Amino acid sequence: MLLNCDIGESYGAWSMGLDDQVMPLIDQANIACGFHAGDPRVMFNTVRLALQHGVTLGAHPAYPDLQGFGRRSMVCAADEIHTMVLYQVGALAQIAAAQGGQLNYVKPHGALYNDMMRDEVILRAILEALAQSPQTLALMAMTTADNQRLKQLCAEYGVTLLLEAFADRAYDSAGYLVSRSQTGAVYHDSSIIVQQALAFARGQSIQSIEGKALHLEADTLCVHGDNPESVAAVWAIRDAFRKLV
Amino acid sequence: MLLNCDIGESYGAWSMGLDDQVMPLIDQANIACGFHAGDPRVMFNTVRLALQHGVTLGAHPAYPDLQGFGRRSMVCAADEIHTMVLYQVGALAQIAAAQGGQLNYVKPHGALYNDMMRDEVILRAILEALAQSPQTLALMAMTTADNQRLKQLCAEYGVTLLLEAFADRAYDSAGYLVSRSQTGAVYHDSSIIVQQALAFARGQSIQSIEGKALHLEADTLCVHGDNPESVAAVWAIRDAFRKLV
Amino acid sequence: MLLNCDIGESYGAWSMGLDDQVMPLIDQANIACGFHAGDPRVMFNTVRLALQHGVTLGAHPAYPDLQGFGRRSMVCAADEIHTMVLYQVGALAQIAAAQGGQLNYVKPHGALYNDMMRDEVILRAILEALAQSPQTLALMAMTTADNQRLKQLCAEYGVTLLLEAFADRAYDSAGYLVSRSQTGAVYHDSSIIVQQALAFARGQSIQSIEGKALHLEADTLCVHGDNPESVAAVWAIRDAFRKLV
Amino acid sequence: MLLNCDIGESYGAWSMGLDDQVMPLIDQANIACGFHAGDPRVMFNTVRLALQHGVTLGAHPAYPDLQGFGRRSMVCAADEIHTMVLYQVGALAQIAAAQGGQLNYVKPHGALYNDMMRDEVILRAILEALAQSPQTLALMAMTTADNQRLKQLCAEYGVTLLLEAFADRAYDSAGYLVSRSQTGAVYHDSSIIVQQALAFARGQSIQSIEGKALHLEADTLCVHGDNPESVAAVWAIRDAFRKLV
Repeated sequence: MLLNCDIGESYGAWSMGLDDQVMPLIDQANIACGFHAGDPRVMFNTVRLALQHGVTLGAHPAYPDLQGFGRRSMVCAADEIHTMVLYQVGALAQIAAAQGGQLNYVKPHGALYNDMMRDEVILRAILEALAQSPQTLALMAMTTADNQRLKQLCAEYGVTLLLEAFADRAYDSAGYLVSRSQTGAVYHDSSIIVQQALAFARGQSIQSIEGKALHLEADTLCVHGDNPESVAAVWAIRDAFRKLV
Repeated sequence: MLLNCDIGESYGAWSMGLDDQVMPLIDQANIACGFHAGDPRVMFNTVRLALQHGVTLGAHPAYPDLQGFGRRSMVCAADEIHTMVLYQVGALAQIAAAQGGQLNYVKPHGALYNDMMRDEVILRAILEALAQSPQTLALMAMTTADNQRLKQLCAEYGVTLLLEAFADRAYDSAGYLVSRSQTGAVYHDSSIIVQQALAFARGQSIQSIEGKALHLEADTLCVHGDNPESVAAVWAIRDAFRKLV
Repeated sequence: MLLNCDIGESYGAWSMGLDDQVMPLIDQANIACGFHAGDPRVMFNTVRLALQHGVTLGAHPAYPDLQGFGRRSMVCAADEIHTMVLYQVGALAQIAAAQGGQLNYVKPHGALYNDMMRDEVILRAILEALAQSPQTLALMAMTTADNQRLKQLCAEYGVTLLLEAFADRAYDSAGYLVSRSQTGAVYHDSSIIVQQALAFARGQSIQSIEGKALHLEADTLCVHGDNPESVAAVWAIRDAFRKLV
Repeated sequence: MLLNCDIGESYGAWSMGLDDQVMPLIDQANIACGFHAGDPRVMFNTVRLALQHGVTLGAHPAYPDLQGFGRRSMVCAADEIHTMVLYQVGALAQIAAAQGGQLNYVKPHGALYNDMMRDEVILRAILEALAQSPQTLALMAMTTADNQRLKQLCAEYGVTLLLEAFADRAYDSAGYLVSRSQTGAVYHDSSIIVQQALAFARGQSIQSIEGKALHLEADTLCVHGDNPESVAAVWAIRDAFRKLV
């Protein structure tokens, strides 16, 4: 079970996230590509940090919305999505290649991620961009109770699928994340987070918010480096994984 | 003697240039990369048009200044220049690769081009980006009466130099372009433009604005597709070149 | 019956619209405020042109999306809408005041306009911005067969409502614009456009696309200055209105 | 002696500065206007915070450069400067008026501030914007050993001048700030900072970096709320000023 983290989300004079602290703990870095965060210099430095720690490089493309941090859904045409993904992935790929690195996967960010999960036109536009890319790029997407259609579409485009789950989020019995607006949606207790992470790692069921056993496939867990608390949770998960082996 | 042209400078709902008309007439397309013009969709369509006409693809990176169309000099640090060039070149390279194309050279745009010609720190930052790029990328730069230092620096970074001259601009006796603010700086008479283009193509001297014979090395001539008049001038040059062979 | 027109939609080096030709023909100028078009210099020059022709000044605020020209709906929070409208209106108001002009109304642009018509939360956010403004600002909004709720909300905020209709667009029998994706949605025949404009001006019914008589209240007609054809249509309407008086 | 502080420099998801802590300690808030920092919502909230603490509102306009935080000089035409200042001041003025506040002065930010101090064309463009504004707006500018020309130009445009000095920066004997790149340019010792602040407040000479007595006029001191250390220095200055009275 791998750990992935959104990273490189500073911009110009604005700093965000404890990248130095969380990078040594993760396997996959979802690196912002300039549309929601991450100017070219931040991208360059983030790639360097990832390479220093042997972390796999992923592109984290977004809607063009710095002000909204890519969290505001925008109604874009399929070819706008397709080309904006190519653009951002290419920009990061070049910055990686300049340092001897190469991209391994793409995880859309924020609203683009959510829109891709609910709208097949958007998913196809992204998959087309990945399939046309000269690099071999997997797609990181959200696991749910039924990943059939997602797998089918990735197969159609010849794109490897990386299913991601969340250790610190509650799931409903259909395998969807409980909305953040609902009480109990986000776990803060480190022992619960570790327990859910271990369940995913062992291929066991987790418990849904309704108390039912829920089995979710997962290749990677999304963790966070926003603040000391979230970094501590990543430490705890990493520590538990080491004992597991 | 090749013909190059700044192209793909539309943006969103705004259209600029007669790309469809000028693309069939040129050899090298300097394609805007999103910082001064050229959103991802425009870039994709411009690459497609270039590939249809067998035109060589070049990146045309700029300062991040849509409002000023990249014409306003910005005081940037060397690593800002270095990474912004990697970013833009990579974005275009990916969009080209998605269509089976590859970049051949880089010509900085507007103020970045001028700043590169007068400031070695900026030139080195750009050359470093090109040298680190996975593609083999030449640098297109302005010819003057003395290209010694420029050649030396390109050689230091292992970057091929493409010297460009202008058929429709007057030169002073030191081999510099006469400032547009000066009368007679820009030629509008098609026969004069063709005559200067032919002189460059034959490796002959042109006449400086002071009336002296001036010899300038050139690999490529910069032409324009802004309006019907400039496209007509490109037609005339192309026609004269055909007869030359 | 007044004529209003979206105007000042150039940006930096990009030119859009025949502002010089259409300004003398209209009563109300919906001036872009920098978020979808119209940089500060364009705004200044557009205000000057409007004042020269005695045209009433209106602000035309939009989502922050130059690349999409404000035509892509963005999911924004109410306070984001509220403050972005204040911001844009204020910027234009200052540029107007610097030339002795003052704003009279606000017409949201593109996707923001459409979203305001279908989402009361967005409409309220806009109305709150107008009600809090130091200027007395009317809201220009789209007329439909039933303007009751719209009038009620404007009254609640103490904001004058200007209902606008379109001379060159087909309406369905419920009083909504026929979608542009449908055949016959946009009239190109000048005589039909003039006929519909006159019907609105006389307070008479127009004919819906289904052939039924449709009565729509209207204070102002939206006309276009995009190209020679649309300017000619404005000429024709203006001419017909002169004869009407 | 007043205390002014750059404030409201967060943007979207990025937070900057301890605004809540420093606002109660200052007299004048230089509020970012969206071009280098401060989106409309941040501006609205910053104005509210300032009004709660009875702090005078100032506009802090900048070059359009989020990525460079307005610190990169841009070569703009006079009318670009003139209209970008009107635009930003107006946006903030409207957001202030919506909450019953009004602007009192303008302090250009970063590179625009520096460029204004060294280039009379830029200073005039800014003064023209202030003179044309419907509000009565003073200009906050840097004091030097000779403020004669600055005063003359402000008088010419009928604009009140607010001279600002720095308590935490070393001055050379000509009354210019020692460049940050030089050792000893920035004071970190709170007692030195307070001592310099008191000298300004009492109209006494300060000591230049060369050890000479230097007399500088000042109406206001620039303080900083970036981090706990700088806020502590503001506390110390405020405390010393209270004892002074």
